[in-house]
Amino acid sequence: MNKRINRTIRLLKNRAFLFTSKSDIFYLTGVELEGFWLLVEKEGAAAIAPKMLAGQLGKLLTGIEVLGGNDLIGLLAERLKKKGAQMLSVNGSALSHGLFSKLNRKIKVKDEGGVLTGLRLIKDPGELQALRKSCKIAVSALRYVKRFIKPGVSEEQIAFKIESYFLDNHVRPSFPLIVASGLNSSNPHHLSSSRKIKPNDVILIDMGCVYKGYCSDLTRTFFLGKTNGLQKTVYLAVKQAHAAAMAMVRPGARADLVDKAARDVIEKAGFGGKFIHSTGHGVGIDIHESPRLSEKDKTVLKPGMAVTVEPGVYLEGDFGVRIEDTVVVTTKGREVLT
Amino acid sequence: MNKRINRTIRLLKNRAFLFTSKSDIFYLTGVELEGFWLLVEKEGAAAIAPKMLAGQLGKLLTGIEVLGGNDLIGLLAERLKKKGAQMLSVNGSALSHGLFSKLNRKIKVKDEGGVLTGLRLIKDPGELQALRKSCKIAVSALRYVKRFIKPGVSEEQIAFKIESYFLDNHVRPSFPLIVASGLNSSNPHHLSSSRKIKPNDVILIDMGCVYKGYCSDLTRTFFLGKTNGLQKTVYLAVKQAHAAAMAMVRPGARADLVDKAARDVIEKAGFGGKFIHSTGHGVGIDIHESPRLSEKDKTVLKPGMAVTVEPGVYLEGDFGVRIEDTVVVTTKGREVLT
Repeated sequence: MNKRINRTIRLLKNRAFLFTSKSDIFYLTGVELEGFWLLVEKEGAAAIAPKMLAGQLGKLLTGIEVLGGNDLIGLLAERLKKKGAQMLSVNGSALSHGLFSKLNRKIKVKDEGGVLTGLRLIKDPGELQALRKSCKIAVSALRYVKRFIKPGVSEEQIAFKIESYFLDNHVRPSFPLIVASGLNSSNPHHLSSSRKIKPNDVILIDMGCVYKGYCSDLTRTFFLGKTNGLQKTVYLAVKQAHAAAMAMVRPGARADLVDKAARDVIEKAGFGGKFIHSTGHGVGIDIHESPRLSEKDKTVLKPGMAVTVEPGVYLEGDFGVRIEDTVVVTTKGREVLT
Repeated sequence: MNKRINRTIRLLKNRAFLFTSKSDIFYLTGVELEGFWLLVEKEGAAAIAPKMLAGQLGKLLTGIEVLGGNDLIGLLAERLKKKGAQMLSVNGSALSHGLFSKLNRKIKVKDEGGVLTGLRLIKDPGELQALRKSCKIAVSALRYVKRFIKPGVSEEQIAFKIESYFLDNHVRPSFPLIVASGLNSSNPHHLSSSRKIKPNDVILIDMGCVYKGYCSDLTRTFFLGKTNGLQKTVYLAVKQAHAAAMAMVRPGARADLVDKAARDVIEKAGFGGKFIHSTGHGVGIDIHESPRLSEKDKTVLKPGMAVTVEPGVYLEGDFGVRIEDTVVVTTKGREVLT
């Protein structure tokens, strides 16, 4: 049995927990395969898998029993009965309501939320190594693609160039890459389109890759040709907000106060209503995970937490600016990975 | 309002339905953006979106109102109250149990399953056009990559070559591509690995791309160098099973009987216990959708349905064979797209 499963068993205190999310299962087993569940009980863990995956899982999982069959709920119910478990705990956010209802017809199921959130918040040295490398590849991809950013080239063409660079480095995007030009940059989640870059455009690129299961996330905003006064003012405000939030990232700082640091700068600059998302989010196996750098999240930052810092200002129908880095909290302060 | 939303309104008969799945929302609106819901009521449709997406959606959606804010459940509850709706219908398989519970605290919610399944089953001419093109690109990618299949090359290298070809053609994979060599071919859902191809290996490639939102799916099994008697016997059995199932694909045939046609051939050949998945699945906006060509699905095939036909035999620790095509039911019989 591996260390993470052992820690999970201690955390569960005799409860039987069914893990259904790909990222939790990857965290616990290192297996990226989808389509099976992981049951953790006080004596150990068992994979509940369709027949077609059982043989494969038997080889991929060490020290974990594999129960294979075509009626997964039946398999699970039988196993719990055999072990004398009265109830099954799940994370309600990690399975569909349809599946929850089906399980609940055969087994007493309780939604206990994400029990691994606390463990996954603090990245261990191996995870940090993967995050560092993931960020390094993203940074070099951005450096590579800069030469293609010029009038006449479409947003999609730039996105495909980045993805090609990723493939050449044997990684894949961590989310649909955002290449937003001109007024498209005023949409925080623009979908890269066939719009061709024009002279004097603002270009916002939000990108990242997955290396050994770990996501990077990075945004830069470029100005082609001439910039006007408003553009300079907005860029400066975002840059200062980014610096203010970054300076707050250290052990003991509260997530909502890091958000506030960025928000205060942007409000003072007069763009308060145009910063329409939170300052950042945790990043790891999932591109968005805990903690959130938002006014609702009071998490106290600790060494090993990895977050993005990404304030932005979006002037609808005109342009937008966002600057984003991935950063890890260290014992002394922070390590910027991008 | 578009035709698909109008048909949905008629189908719903005064109910208010909240669409939460990306593929249902894409089907109804043509918008690929994630992170918002689509409410369909008797008078029309409204997008319920976080503030950061509202402006963008206002431009992407025509004839659909956009309600933007940061408390989506509150927005929704207020809207339903204003319209006098007593209840909200959802598809329990398309939202998490956690979200269902949160909604249910403010609104009376009912799980009514996938109301669009019937509409999405029958592809219209525009959808068929996209599917045809998607399959055509997948076929040409496979033709392109064949030249790289030789001893010393790793499974991952071949997968990356296919993905590069896809990018050059401005499409992306429809699922994690499967390149399985040697004994790995005996895992139906093998994850392409660093294993290098050896002389006389069996190579199974399962691949597809997404073109304008529509997925293709295609599997071929190759034999490098010499083949032994068992390999020949298994390949022949799978080929005959594939042909038998294909011949059954026509209007009026029942999905489970298409499955049975393939299964009978493989059983007769003595490999019944080694065909460990169903014969095929519907394909469209989702890589797996209705109908299923399995013993449990009694759907009667009709013109416009698109399915895969993919029998396989897997001899654990030795090798596996699968042959898969994407096929559309026509008024006269079938059209093979791959």
